[in-house]
Amino acid sequence: MNFFRYPVFLLALLLPAISFAQTEGEEAPLTDDQKMVKSIYEEVLVHGQCYDNLRYLCKVIGHRLSGSEGAAKAVTWGKEVMEKLGADKVWLQDVMVPHWERGEKENAFIAAPGLKRQEVPICALGGSVGTGKSGLTAQVIEVQSLKDLEKLGRKKIEGKIVFYNRPFDPKFIDAFQAYGSCVDQRSSGAVEAAKYGAIGTVVRSMTHSLDDFPHTGAMRYVDTIPKIPAVAISTNGAELLSRLLRQSPNLNFHFRTTCQTLPDAPSHNVVGEIRGSEFPNEIIVIGGHLDSWDLGEGAHDDGAGIVQSMEVLRIIKALGLKPKRTIRAVLFINEENGMKGALKYEEIAREKGEKHIAGLESDRGGFSPRGFSIDGSPDQITYLQDWQDLLEPYFVHTIHPGYGGVDISPFRSHGIPLVGLVPDSQRYFDYHHCANDVFENVNKRELELGSATMAALVWLISEHGLNQ
Amino acid sequence: MNFFRYPVFLLALLLPAISFAQTEGEEAPLTDDQKMVKSIYEEVLVHGQCYDNLRYLCKVIGHRLSGSEGAAKAVTWGKEVMEKLGADKVWLQDVMVPHWERGEKENAFIAAPGLKRQEVPICALGGSVGTGKSGLTAQVIEVQSLKDLEKLGRKKIEGKIVFYNRPFDPKFIDAFQAYGSCVDQRSSGAVEAAKYGAIGTVVRSMTHSLDDFPHTGAMRYVDTIPKIPAVAISTNGAELLSRLLRQSPNLNFHFRTTCQTLPDAPSHNVVGEIRGSEFPNEIIVIGGHLDSWDLGEGAHDDGAGIVQSMEVLRIIKALGLKPKRTIRAVLFINEENGMKGALKYEEIAREKGEKHIAGLESDRGGFSPRGFSIDGSPDQITYLQDWQDLLEPYFVHTIHPGYGGVDISPFRSHGIPLVGLVPDSQRYFDYHHCANDVFENVNKRELELGSATMAALVWLISEHGLNQ
Repeated sequence: MNFFRYPVFLLALLLPAISFAQTEGEEAPLTDDQKMVKSIYEEVLVHGQCYDNLRYLCKVIGHRLSGSEGAAKAVTWGKEVMEKLGADKVWLQDVMVPHWERGEKENAFIAAPGLKRQEVPICALGGSVGTGKSGLTAQVIEVQSLKDLEKLGRKKIEGKIVFYNRPFDPKFIDAFQAYGSCVDQRSSGAVEAAKYGAIGTVVRSMTHSLDDFPHTGAMRYVDTIPKIPAVAISTNGAELLSRLLRQSPNLNFHFRTTCQTLPDAPSHNVVGEIRGSEFPNEIIVIGGHLDSWDLGEGAHDDGAGIVQSMEVLRIIKALGLKPKRTIRAVLFINEENGMKGALKYEEIAREKGEKHIAGLESDRGGFSPRGFSIDGSPDQITYLQDWQDLLEPYFVHTIHPGYGGVDISPFRSHGIPLVGLVPDSQRYFDYHHCANDVFENVNKRELELGSATMAALVWLISEHGLNQ
Repeated sequence: MNFFRYPVFLLALLLPAISFAQTEGEEAPLTDDQKMVKSIYEEVLVHGQCYDNLRYLCKVIGHRLSGSEGAAKAVTWGKEVMEKLGADKVWLQDVMVPHWERGEKENAFIAAPGLKRQEVPICALGGSVGTGKSGLTAQVIEVQSLKDLEKLGRKKIEGKIVFYNRPFDPKFIDAFQAYGSCVDQRSSGAVEAAKYGAIGTVVRSMTHSLDDFPHTGAMRYVDTIPKIPAVAISTNGAELLSRLLRQSPNLNFHFRTTCQTLPDAPSHNVVGEIRGSEFPNEIIVIGGHLDSWDLGEGAHDDGAGIVQSMEVLRIIKALGLKPKRTIRAVLFINEENGMKGALKYEEIAREKGEKHIAGLESDRGGFSPRGFSIDGSPDQITYLQDWQDLLEPYFVHTIHPGYGGVDISPFRSHGIPLVGLVPDSQRYFDYHHCANDVFENVNKRELELGSATMAALVWLISEHGLNQ
């Protein structure tokens, strides 16, 4: 696009008419809330530090799986950042976390008569046992769902590798719906296949994209069922394997993983707060998770949520605001493979009799914010929806019922609204849990707008409360 | 984010409650319009060809500045694609276009006493004269606006290079507003500086991003004012130059460009249409521009708009629809540096007495669609806004007054609504007019959703007309 040649009256048409914040002086004077929301967005867009913080977290610290050296460094760094931005109080909460290690780089290949050995990109799923040093080789049975196993029966599965190949359904507009409808293959695939005597599982990576990145993620075992090794294969690899299986149903698949689960390790949630000036005992908790998978840099998942949550505190300090209610940012540890940080935070809050009034989580990537999804009562949802008009000038249009987030989910029993920041979802699974989740794939302004959107909602709650 | 561990009732919360299209059976039956919009989105997301078409346009044909070999290939390709997708009629319109060539790769450096020579990334602005083979070396005067020139006066400008360094204002939420408020430096900078005796201009690249890509774009001369060479410098280069100027106000800047304007060249608009079944003489024109700048691949600008416009026709054919009104896709040539294709298309339409009832343009990148901006009468805008509910399940929320697009702008005099597809704007200027505007930076689903959003609106207009 070009439009240098157009007279000013035409250029002016480019300016969206929606935006009171952008066309000062032409419309009614701003309300106090409108002014504050505007200040918040401008503070982030002009002086934001979340992008630089994310660069440090991704490029200097790097990935940070629970129990790893990276996770320990991230805890220290998170505490320092929150102290530096001027939080009234910053502290660590001790929590024991699972400690799983990937071990050596995995490898896999397909072998069939008359076929040149085809290497394919795989990675172990988080929590999986390893194959042992010599790896595992077996025939493959491809299925589209856990239910297919029952139809096939033990005879066709025993001694084989089960290959779960149900792709993301492209018809879902929200990419998280596609994920939600596929992820059982990853999380429960090994347990279910082992019931029928399978000796390993391969799952198609959880993404719309056709590419060469294998995507890891958590899987679980059940004590009474044999623990078999589980890996993810890139989507291109899955397509290849499926095609070759149609040609050579008896082909062999080989994979080798040396991952293992070590004893639980000590770690920490990092907590920082700005005390409320009028109702300090009413706490709004915001956060994301500090741990990440060990591929890539955990930039979108969930470095973005971490730096955005800290940015909310920074904005409030930078603007010299005195929130009426306490705003607390928590960098939760161990969301990816245990949720121990979230459980510990809620346990301590309960023991102390703390009154939390709302939770806000950012864990869907650092993309352009579209709205919020709220897990709460109809009254709570209606109350929060009343603020939608304040956010529309910033292209935030959807305040809807929905899921809040994993790390605030233990507060469901508190009966408070749990709110998830909802960014645009289309690119999230291009990066999620794979080597492509790196700093370079985060756009500075999209990240900043997410911070501002969180800060605006948090400010409104802190000013007006939730005792509707 | 992870949530494999959650019971189904919690997972279900993830599903946005807004989306009737996504939760069939639970809500009221769909209206005919709702069904059709749903079919359109699903057709693109499942069977879309726009992404593959864009890959071909970018990777096989590449950039395609008016008058270039790439532009000629793109014309041939565009015609073939439209024929193959089954348009009722496909034809070319002859049009003469400006023919400017960049010449050899440009170079530039900063030299000051005691300073190691600093090379900086530059590119010639489109339409600029070259410096001649030995380049141009002079002192630099930095300004923030065209108005600064008057304050400085001829004495401080004569014989120097004027360096326009007003950055994008980060406070604008819509990145196009930041562009609109800076681009005069690029388009008019040389003419204005030459009035005061400057011998060349350097303009800070038109982007929020701090990086090493110089961004080209059109500039204009006026016959009565000396034509001086004009280049763009990367934002990092601009920051460096500004810093060094503060240290050494008398530093020298050298740049060399061998660009030149050749005689106008023959080229073509590519036009394809599906004839209306009831009102074939009522034409809805949709399009983007086939030409691009000669850096990068013109992926977002405007390969996206080209493949999306053709995809609209493909969807209609693939779904076996018979639109009541004629839908015509135009691949306009020469948007970037002359607009000759747009002017020619409207001229022919006028001469033939064709009745166009609406124009829809996609020329703001292949990002997630957010809405439409409409240049039309209040009644026309209100009429189109009535369809917003149909599009909200697809996260399309803003149907607002605004600019339509450059290539449909000649139809302003026809009194018809001119509609621009509005995608998320944050990343557009990371890529715009620079070597970074490549296929890899377009997300398949974001591109497809844009196609579907266009097709949905076009279908509604074709069904219901605009004779409100």
